[in-house]
Amino acid sequence: MNPLPPGSTIGILGGGQLGRMLAIAAAQLGFDVCIFTDEPDSPASRVAAKTIVGNYLDHAALADFARRVHVVTTEFENVPAETLETLIAAGARVAPTPNALAVAQDRFDEKSYFQSAGIATPPFKAIGSQEDLDAAIAEIGVPAILKTRRLGYDGRGQIRINSLADAKGAYERLGAPGILEGFCPFEREISVIGVRGAGSATSFFEACENEHSGGILSRTTLPAKIDAFTADAAERAVFLTMEAFDYVGVLTIEFFVMSDGALVANEMAPRVHNSGHWTIEGAVTSQFEQHIRAIAGWPFGSSKRIAAIEMLNLIGEDANTWPQLAADPTARLHLYGKRDARAGRKMGHVTKLKSHL
Amino acid sequence: MNPLPPGSTIGILGGGQLGRMLAIAAAQLGFDVCIFTDEPDSPASRVAAKTIVGNYLDHAALADFARRVHVVTTEFENVPAETLETLIAAGARVAPTPNALAVAQDRFDEKSYFQSAGIATPPFKAIGSQEDLDAAIAEIGVPAILKTRRLGYDGRGQIRINSLADAKGAYERLGAPGILEGFCPFEREISVIGVRGAGSATSFFEACENEHSGGILSRTTLPAKIDAFTADAAERAVFLTMEAFDYVGVLTIEFFVMSDGALVANEMAPRVHNSGHWTIEGAVTSQFEQHIRAIAGWPFGSSKRIAAIEMLNLIGEDANTWPQLAADPTARLHLYGKRDARAGRKMGHVTKLKSHL
Repeated sequence: MNPLPPGSTIGILGGGQLGRMLAIAAAQLGFDVCIFTDEPDSPASRVAAKTIVGNYLDHAALADFARRVHVVTTEFENVPAETLETLIAAGARVAPTPNALAVAQDRFDEKSYFQSAGIATPPFKAIGSQEDLDAAIAEIGVPAILKTRRLGYDGRGQIRINSLADAKGAYERLGAPGILEGFCPFEREISVIGVRGAGSATSFFEACENEHSGGILSRTTLPAKIDAFTADAAERAVFLTMEAFDYVGVLTIEFFVMSDGALVANEMAPRVHNSGHWTIEGAVTSQFEQHIRAIAGWPFGSSKRIAAIEMLNLIGEDANTWPQLAADPTARLHLYGKRDARAGRKMGHVTKLKSHL
Repeated sequence: MNPLPPGSTIGILGGGQLGRMLAIAAAQLGFDVCIFTDEPDSPASRVAAKTIVGNYLDHAALADFARRVHVVTTEFENVPAETLETLIAAGARVAPTPNALAVAQDRFDEKSYFQSAGIATPPFKAIGSQEDLDAAIAEIGVPAILKTRRLGYDGRGQIRINSLADAKGAYERLGAPGILEGFCPFEREISVIGVRGAGSATSFFEACENEHSGGILSRTTLPAKIDAFTADAAERAVFLTMEAFDYVGVLTIEFFVMSDGALVANEMAPRVHNSGHWTIEGAVTSQFEQHIRAIAGWPFGSSKRIAAIEMLNLIGEDANTWPQLAADPTARLHLYGKRDARAGRKMGHVTKLKSHL
């Protein structure tokens, strides 16, 4: 494809903070942005040239969206397949491709893909009944985690199984088809963010180290405390995955790192990722700009990191500390414009650049 | 004043690229932005939550604007006094204060202010007739520059007087009250950007060196080739000026630097400035964010420079080189979304960070 010229319109499915930061990156390159969201007054729509508020299954609204934009991307992976099919039928170019989204939407399909690509995962079994669960626990052992196959995020839709007693009735409590994953006694968690675009070019951000709290990312630091061999292996897994899906855009894989440096893939996100927010100030080019460049068919900017980094998520009431955060002259504060600081809600983040490279 | 909490609305008069970059900075801090502009489909409105399109003398539209916002600022200095009076009468808090705008709107008042503050200027005389011009040339000599007192920018409204012959009929050609300025045989041009805000706190960006082409800024570099004494004197002039006007927000002064390091003030801009675009990537906190922090009553971020810098303006058809600029992985490309690349129009800029500090 020819690169999209500035002045073209980028369509983004979803109105959350990832869409907001994508919209800002697109504007800086001279693109207009049109957001499609089911949420009136979304964080992303407040920095976009145009917003269409509609249901993700509203064919007429989607067709209107498709007509207004030169390419469609998404800020969340749980886009209904019907939404993407409708957009493509209406003539929209969609990036990334629907099959990458489909695989990432289902934890079992995702881990099956990793396995087929030779990327290590925790032991896992699909669970469609209590009998399946009992059999899987007999094979995998405890502790283990029972998760819904679909629609879980930030620790939701998960049941920890520490003993056979925990397993009793657990499938009914889960309330949906699931996957049992063996517990992985990792030493640390990392993620690698890659981007693939025009002419199959790729670029990678340096692996970052992540800490979670209550299933939600709380802190990302760079450099990660991993050796070059582990870093290379993680980047290679992202490369292979982007190749496997003929992927266009940013793709993230989260890994567990074992005490011997071995990697175990936890999950993939076919989108820009919370663990990449540091790239706004901490890399020459941000993940958001690289994603826009990829879907616009532009060459990539440099993904090089420029400083030692600490990124802290502001969850729920954390955002009420903005006066203290604003008073730290080196803390780069980002607030997403969400009206209501509900518990567990990602309200903003802070990036600190500790020493320049 | 108490600091404005995130979720408040920042009002910006003007829809150009400075308003666009202010709007993005405001959004990143969690503010909503409302643009008031007389231009439909302005660059700033495409990244703002709300736009009011109206004439700057439309009292009803201005009152509507005043009701919707918590503070009003401007991206251009030539705001009619009546506009500001109307906004203030409607209850708006306006920053910076109207008197700083008024002085900056008139080259004679501006240079008279500099003189009164002990800040050196080129020799100058107010010109209200051809006789004034002839007398001023007799006193100041040639070469000299005849400028309109008001509404000139980017080299417009200027007549170079190299000889007595050039002076003949020049006042009629100018067509408006003018000022004659003696030619200043400077070695280089610099600008200093300061910001003043809550509790009279101030912060300064390092002086940058500017090159103009056809009266329009073409290139800004840092560090400027000036000594510490000159840098201090320039910063002191900005400090004094902000104090003199009880200023709130970003203020810029452009200086000529003579071969002996002496400074001559050229002009002041009561706003964010083209020569400060490097601060987006090149300083810990950008001039745009510092301005928003100032008018919101927030403490400042660090204005520290993080790298050696080259900023290139993209004027008119320069913007058509975007494919080449996009292919330079370390060039940070900014395009303003202007629909038409007219000659002399500022279409975008590129910032290159050359070595990190």
